[in-house]
Amino acid sequence: LMSLMMGNGMSGTYPRYQGTLRIDQNLLINSQYTPGSPLFLPSGAHIYNKLISFLRAQYVRYGFQEVLTPNIYKAALWETSGHWENYKDDMFQVSGRGVSGVQDEGDQPVEYGLKPMNCPGHCVMFSMTSGSRSFRDMPVRYADFSPLHRNEISGALTGLTRLRRFHQDDGHIFCRPSQIVDEIQKSLEFIETVYNAFHLPKPEFVLSTRPENFMGDIAVWNRAEEALQTALNESGQPWTINEGDGAFYGPKIDIILTDSDGKKHQTATVQLDFQLPERFDLTYKSPAPELEAQGIETTDPEQLATSGLVRPVIIHRAVLGSLERFMALLMEHYRGRWPFWISPKQCKVIPVDNRSQELIDYAKRVQASLSGLPDESPEARKIPVPMSKRAFKVDIDESADNLKKKIVKARKEGYTFLCVVGMKDLADGMVALDVTHPEAIGGADVMGLVKRALGAEGSERV
Amino acid sequence: LMSLMMGNGMSGTYPRYQGTLRIDQNLLINSQYTPGSPLFLPSGAHIYNKLISFLRAQYVRYGFQEVLTPNIYKAALWETSGHWENYKDDMFQVSGRGVSGVQDEGDQPVEYGLKPMNCPGHCVMFSMTSGSRSFRDMPVRYADFSPLHRNEISGALTGLTRLRRFHQDDGHIFCRPSQIVDEIQKSLEFIETVYNAFHLPKPEFVLSTRPENFMGDIAVWNRAEEALQTALNESGQPWTINEGDGAFYGPKIDIILTDSDGKKHQTATVQLDFQLPERFDLTYKSPAPELEAQGIETTDPEQLATSGLVRPVIIHRAVLGSLERFMALLMEHYRGRWPFWISPKQCKVIPVDNRSQELIDYAKRVQASLSGLPDESPEARKIPVPMSKRAFKVDIDESADNLKKKIVKARKEGYTFLCVVGMKDLADGMVALDVTHPEAIGGADVMGLVKRALGAEGSERV
Ligand SMILES: [Zn+2]
Ligand SMILES: [Zn+2]
Repeated sequence: LMSLMMGNGMSGTYPRYQGTLRIDQNLLINSQYTPGSPLFLPSGAHIYNKLISFLRAQYVRYGFQEVLTPNIYKAALWETSGHWENYKDDMFQVSGRGVSGVQDEGDQPVEYGLKPMNCPGHCVMFSMTSGSRSFRDMPVRYADFSPLHRNEISGALTGLTRLRRFHQDDGHIFCRPSQIVDEIQKSLEFIETVYNAFHLPKPEFVLSTRPENFMGDIAVWNRAEEALQTALNESGQPWTINEGDGAFYGPKIDIILTDSDGKKHQTATVQLDFQLPERFDLTYKSPAPELEAQGIETTDPEQLATSGLVRPVIIHRAVLGSLERFMALLMEHYRGRWPFWISPKQCKVIPVDNRSQELIDYAKRVQASLSGLPDESPEARKIPVPMSKRAFKVDIDESADNLKKKIVKARKEGYTFLCVVGMKDLADGMVALDVTHPEAIGGADVMGLVKRALGAEGSERV
Repeated sequence: LMSLMMGNGMSGTYPRYQGTLRIDQNLLINSQYTPGSPLFLPSGAHIYNKLISFLRAQYVRYGFQEVLTPNIYKAALWETSGHWENYKDDMFQVSGRGVSGVQDEGDQPVEYGLKPMNCPGHCVMFSMTSGSRSFRDMPVRYADFSPLHRNEISGALTGLTRLRRFHQDDGHIFCRPSQIVDEIQKSLEFIETVYNAFHLPKPEFVLSTRPENFMGDIAVWNRAEEALQTALNESGQPWTINEGDGAFYGPKIDIILTDSDGKKHQTATVQLDFQLPERFDLTYKSPAPELEAQGIETTDPEQLATSGLVRPVIIHRAVLGSLERFMALLMEHYRGRWPFWISPKQCKVIPVDNRSQELIDYAKRVQASLSGLPDESPEARKIPVPMSKRAFKVDIDESADNLKKKIVKARKEGYTFLCVVGMKDLADGMVALDVTHPEAIGGADVMGLVKRALGAEGSERV
């Protein structure tokens, strides 16, 4: 079995660039022990974590609150959400103990489902904490990076774009009907800002509208579709319409990226949902409840004197979509030359000669210093490293190759900074700097290089 | 079913402080849909994420590389690791599709296990990337925050200390036998630094040694136990010994905290493992392989001329252990008064009067500014928020309660900073500051408060 697994690790079904990168940059591997669930090596986990840090910084602006929700739920949840009826074959079934005190359970095995999406868990959270939630507390915006599992048929698994285990930058907005336009607009703005930051080609925006078998109130649908059209128009993005192609529970906007092979990938999505709030009986308190439910604001004192429970609308939204799929698109987009801020290969230290232990030691001190790890006394090590401490990804080439070969190799591997150190540098406490931009070759002391890297991290973000 | 779930959310089996905090601070809730798998509300997720950020900063110092590994693996992995034989009843069983091209699989349902620990996945990663790994590349240190699942009997579930789904600050060190002492010493230093940072009472260190049914070479055991004793002695911590109480596959050090009820909790652990490297056939290349395997360094040229494959030793280590259990201990330790850097309740803005819309608006601007969200123009919003942007957790009290009542409430809730704003402050652009340390009451402008909060975040870390 080990050799089978090794074989799978070395082959795989990655498209063009991913195939190369997986080997050159050691981002991810596949194992036959768990097909469709890649293992993220340190460099892959680094990129994944940078994407999440980047999104978290944006979440402050857009008012998302991160939550962390369970991975398995009993069949009863999936019955409530409708997944058991419509989606069961695409879910991994889990068997585990129940709880005593619940009918037909005890410690007997009961049926759970491994979650394919976060929405039902977020509905449970909303409903359990609703207590006295009023219209003033809306919208509530939950974000979640939980791993998701889908029991895809093996023929559908392709590289990172279709997996059995993946992560989304998932978010659910629970809002008043009158807040739909504003929330959609902000979601589109969020998407535009992020896609610009990666210098990605302009995505396509596609609106899918009411199908024949729609649920709910046609007036609410009309207002919602109008809201989506208004938001799309105000975004200034060109967009197209897929008449009647919305889900039965709400209209949506899909964001579609085209890769360099011309293949289209759905990444971001903004999906309205009138159904889940019904299924989970979600409510908030509002004056003028009948008008509120239709998204109509009133100043009529008679209406405002009434009060009641109103269903929120849910907006499912993802900006990057599947983080794995988005990573695959970025791999192809950057072709291994990651922007400095996200790169797992920020710098490589290259001693001109690996026969001098003194020089190797100096190169290692340069590496440690750039990595955010200066020499520390035993006393200093009793103090935790501050969370604000900046660290860079710095490798070292201790091989016996000649200098030219080492430089060519490091460039091919996609390092942003190359630090060449020789005996003179050792004496001067300097390094010779070779960055990917040829005009920037020159000498720098180590702290100068750290400052420069910090600057690069700021400016190369976008 | 909904009412059942709501009932469970409101009751639960939390011990003293957790019970109170869960309601007062809204950290976590339980749902009958998934017993033993708490849902982390925004404040709970905030604390969880801060713990992880804190550990990640330390990982740079200690050379850990974060990885992200799958949640489900086929039975074959658990057979290799030995879990299927010894631990199957404590694992959730998963049924999902296999892959075509593998015997007896195709898209037929095959048996998977939901991982109870990360070690087997890390062994797969080590073995698949071992290629030409040499003694120079050792040690390899993987860290992983994956969710873990254990099919505990329902009677065993208690609060956050015993769960079915939890997270560990899990790490595995793959090292040369000669590196054991150094790695153990660094692990103990890591643990000591972190526990000091939380001002936790000194934990107990307990060494468990070779049992009757040990596996492997007695000489290796002797050297390993000597290494652990040396590391414990050099740590300066008092420690005790549990003779013969080690696992059959290696000796270990357990770190045990006592809570204020006198109950003992095992948190950190440092466990040597001679077995998993055998089961997964892990190797690295080394000169003088026979001496290398015994942890003996040699300068004998004849020995050094030989080369071969050697088994690494694995050290399983966790510093906080279960993050959920550690959070429970911190809840009790701090009694709701979280240190500023980790607190989900860093500041509360209190307008003296909620009838003035002008004052409420000013209070909201103060809140936005402290939260890291100053007024932004539409143009500014096209630029992503930098990852380095600091944001604080700031709430606002818009209730009609009188000032005194609002202050008492905010203090009881455990806020570090209270910002009281009145009409004069509005005119001056100031806030009246009330921090938990009574000597610090005074006025401050908003930017002064931000600076002060940044200072508090630095200095109150430890
Ligand atoms: Zn959703
Ligand atoms: Zn382990």
